[in-house]
Amino acid sequence: MQVPSAASRYQTLDLAAVPSLLAGLPDVRARLGGRPADWQIREVGDGNLNLVFLIDGPSGTVCVKQAVPYVRAAGPSWPMSLERAFFENAYYQAVAPHVGRRIPEVYHYDPELYCTIMERLSPHIILRRGLIAGNVYPDLALHMGEYVARACFFTSDLAQACERKMSGVALFAGNQALTRISVDLIFSDPYLASERNRHTSPQLDGLAREFQRDAGLKIAVARFGRKFLTQAEALLHGDLHSGSVMVTGDDTRVIDPEFALYGPIGFDLGAFFGNLLLNAYAQPGHATDSDDRSRQQAWVLGQARQFWLAFRRHFLELWREAGSEGYPGMLFEQAADAAQIDAARHAYLEAIFADMLGFAACKMIRRILGFAHVLDFDAIPDPLRRAECEARALRLARRLLTHPAEFASIEAVIDAASGGIQ
Amino acid sequence: MQVPSAASRYQTLDLAAVPSLLAGLPDVRARLGGRPADWQIREVGDGNLNLVFLIDGPSGTVCVKQAVPYVRAAGPSWPMSLERAFFENAYYQAVAPHVGRRIPEVYHYDPELYCTIMERLSPHIILRRGLIAGNVYPDLALHMGEYVARACFFTSDLAQACERKMSGVALFAGNQALTRISVDLIFSDPYLASERNRHTSPQLDGLAREFQRDAGLKIAVARFGRKFLTQAEALLHGDLHSGSVMVTGDDTRVIDPEFALYGPIGFDLGAFFGNLLLNAYAQPGHATDSDDRSRQQAWVLGQARQFWLAFRRHFLELWREAGSEGYPGMLFEQAADAAQIDAARHAYLEAIFADMLGFAACKMIRRILGFAHVLDFDAIPDPLRRAECEARALRLARRLLTHPAEFASIEAVIDAASGGIQ
Repeated sequence: MQVPSAASRYQTLDLAAVPSLLAGLPDVRARLGGRPADWQIREVGDGNLNLVFLIDGPSGTVCVKQAVPYVRAAGPSWPMSLERAFFENAYYQAVAPHVGRRIPEVYHYDPELYCTIMERLSPHIILRRGLIAGNVYPDLALHMGEYVARACFFTSDLAQACERKMSGVALFAGNQALTRISVDLIFSDPYLASERNRHTSPQLDGLAREFQRDAGLKIAVARFGRKFLTQAEALLHGDLHSGSVMVTGDDTRVIDPEFALYGPIGFDLGAFFGNLLLNAYAQPGHATDSDDRSRQQAWVLGQARQFWLAFRRHFLELWREAGSEGYPGMLFEQAADAAQIDAARHAYLEAIFADMLGFAACKMIRRILGFAHVLDFDAIPDPLRRAECEARALRLARRLLTHPAEFASIEAVIDAASGGIQ
Repeated sequence: MQVPSAASRYQTLDLAAVPSLLAGLPDVRARLGGRPADWQIREVGDGNLNLVFLIDGPSGTVCVKQAVPYVRAAGPSWPMSLERAFFENAYYQAVAPHVGRRIPEVYHYDPELYCTIMERLSPHIILRRGLIAGNVYPDLALHMGEYVARACFFTSDLAQACERKMSGVALFAGNQALTRISVDLIFSDPYLASERNRHTSPQLDGLAREFQRDAGLKIAVARFGRKFLTQAEALLHGDLHSGSVMVTGDDTRVIDPEFALYGPIGFDLGAFFGNLLLNAYAQPGHATDSDDRSRQQAWVLGQARQFWLAFRRHFLELWREAGSEGYPGMLFEQAADAAQIDAARHAYLEAIFADMLGFAACKMIRRILGFAHVLDFDAIPDPLRRAECEARALRLARRLLTHPAEFASIEAVIDAASGGIQ
């Protein structure tokens, strides 16, 4: 890992610099076709942390993503390590053999420019925007459940020798700058009078204050914060919300794994699950005279349920196929053992389920009371209506954290969410 | 980290090479006094992995410990990374600010010779030998409980910023060769027909076969094996049995941390606790006409109990003193919160207690049915008598793993051990 020095080639790319960079890469140049002068380039980054350029050539297209040395949403006053581009690329490399076309193809990584040249996803849109628009993606939950199952299973101790996993742990333990963001913004700031927080005010002032004074809630959040830092089960995407997924009617792609780290599998699951719940809670805010969005809401909740079930099915299947590898070095020869082993696997999946709910709740709260919010709510112009939706989401999240025993099954969670939304 | 290359200075030290090495270190030379020709040197390594030299000079003494590139007990046919010396030194450095005189002072580390020059502990003896001899060490449990509490607390997320802990995790994730030994010898081999296993035969043939066929037992062991590799709570010694502790009547020192890694706190606790139980179970085998060893046995079990209680008291005290750091970034201003926070801390300690028992049991089993045995049993010449002691220890260990709910308190464990011994 490096930080840019005077001798480094690092410069922030612009519309002029991108073509000359790409012209120097024969494979990429061939993919685009024609000459650099023929290429159409635009900058489309709408995230918090990066520049994103889309380049159209006569024969093909590519996407260029570059890290800038500060949090883009906050400006140069909040500096941010460029290394995140390194970890994003390392994550793509690590999971690529296991997840097929669920991630974009990476054509080139430039370690000095902290810049990735990769497949341009088209006509994909950001899932979050599609869900807000009321679109339906029939395979979404199945794709995402299988994705998390495969990415996590194959990077866990269930499928890797300890040496290989320890090397992965060592590598991603370098991703400290982005882990610090998660620690602060998810597990700490929303429960403090942090200047970075905001919420729909004055409507949610009371709830925000209540959350900051709820010792039981804060203790539960702190427990999940510790879990996040200690439970190195698998390589995680680290920020798997609906803004990190791009979709078409039948395709699903995972992007932006710059927060990648080894951690609890429930953290990735909870990010996606929690963001589906947030979208479901936001749906009434997007109602029109002709569509009260209740159908869309039910579909989103159904996807949340299917997502967990698909993850669970695929993870168990991979584990069963792994045979004795899943219990390293143990021989279970007797047929009678099979039932006990399967019970043990189910118990492990139940623990992951509880983790998913806890992390989902932490992420729901931070998106309503913390620094970075979600468009699902922000796009509701009437603050009163928005606050109603947000308050319902906050109440379920708190309940998930303070009364976990009430949510022993996926049905219990979906029922509670459906009831809270009505 | 390096591996010895042709260009490296690495050579196996001998009685001739040690003085010239030490003569080149002004501080060590001054400590010994006189000239190299005045120094008395002997090699005393009785462990599995290293050369150990004791050097006496006119003014002082030092100890030199060097890693050799194979498992000493097995010979050059079992090669072993020299890096363990690097990790041993790194562990000493990491815990030195927190544990006072419970570890030897390190004078010099030579990264090319994989050799540590350190305080010679005298008149200390290895604790295991002292316990077998029937000695009593009044402060043992208090010293060791406080040691584990301080070494683990200060290297955990409860006392360190996540960046610092992640750097530690990254460093010790390099200790793969010795972690592989633990994974194989503790969590796998004893339950397989491994050539490396041995046991008192034929007396324990039946139990060994039972253990290899007990699916519930193997599932529990596999769960602790996964915990060992995933639950990075604190920097561990990694091999904290009674052979890694040196004692006098009133002093206690921890040595040989070459298995150091980030892992579950219960693993270090379980190593020490389990080895005290092994010693207690071995005591009847050392009975003489004048001493049935029942008093010594009761004392050892009392120390096991005190060890846990001392750890618990110190760990809680450190956590309470850390104040809001223990719940990073959380503000708990209201007096009413204190009781809830303390309940959460106790719940965390209960989980560590359960881990301690599980890991203790794994370690007890591997010392009786696996590759590396303990002198506590090996020094009992009559195989029948030895097998009786070993069988009792094995039965408690299996019960701890398969019926953990029966052992919710330290008293329940000590009672069961006392009963099983009679």
